[in-house]
Amino acid sequence: MDPSQIANVFVKQYYDTFDKNRPDVVGLYHPQTCVLTFEGQVCSGKEEIMKKLTSLAFTNIQHVITTVDAQPTYDDMIVVFVVGQLKTDEDNPHSFSQTFVLKKEADNRLYVVNDMFRLSLHHG
Amino acid sequence: MDPSQIANVFVKQYYDTFDKNRPDVVGLYHPQTCVLTFEGQVCSGKEEIMKKLTSLAFTNIQHVITTVDAQPTYDDMIVVFVVGQLKTDEDNPHSFSQTFVLKKEADNRLYVVNDMFRLSLHHG
Repeated sequence: MDPSQIANVFVKQYYDTFDKNRPDVVGLYHPQTCVLTFEGQVCSGKEEIMKKLTSLAFTNIQHVITTVDAQPTYDDMIVVFVVGQLKTDEDNPHSFSQTFVLKKEADNRLYVVNDMFRLSLHHG
Repeated sequence: MDPSQIANVFVKQYYDTFDKNRPDVVGLYHPQTCVLTFEGQVCSGKEEIMKKLTSLAFTNIQHVITTVDAQPTYDDMIVVFVVGQLKTDEDNPHSFSQTFVLKKEADNRLYVVNDMFRLSLHHG
């Protein structure tokens, strides 16, 4: 599979898991090295990441994906760049963008090593 | 310098160059390996990237940066994730987001190996 196909499969799996069974998303992060920067807050390792993601204050969430871009990079990794909208509970949709770096491990599975999430909220 | 400081210096240099002297931005891309995905269009290598960036149809452009996030990753690289607004000519501002992967080379300089740019335009 080319990086675009891999990215599309990953993105579907990530957000489906996030939206339907959030605690399971931790299984997609790299067992040894993973970092999430969520709205500027840095969480290192699976435990901190899980704590952050499960603490987010909404009951229902839906990620609606607008675009997925992907590029291979050094060390056999893939950079995945997502633009979409977030629909939580009864709020209006919010634009978000998110960057993942995926790394293949010995079990042939891809794991998230880097994750950065931002809502598109601008000053003024 | 930590990755955040490096990212902030890079981001200032990248967008200042882009907005004031666009052809010079090519010097920031990795001499051997660099890929730009611009609104879904893939450009490989400095020559293709430069052709794309200089062909963009606006006279005046200003990138206004909202947030810059950065994380180190494998192979001594840094992932930089930018959210901002783009002001071109007389148009209304557009939200954009952009992901860079920077790699340090033997000359101790950081070069862009991956670059993905998207306006935050959603369906419907």
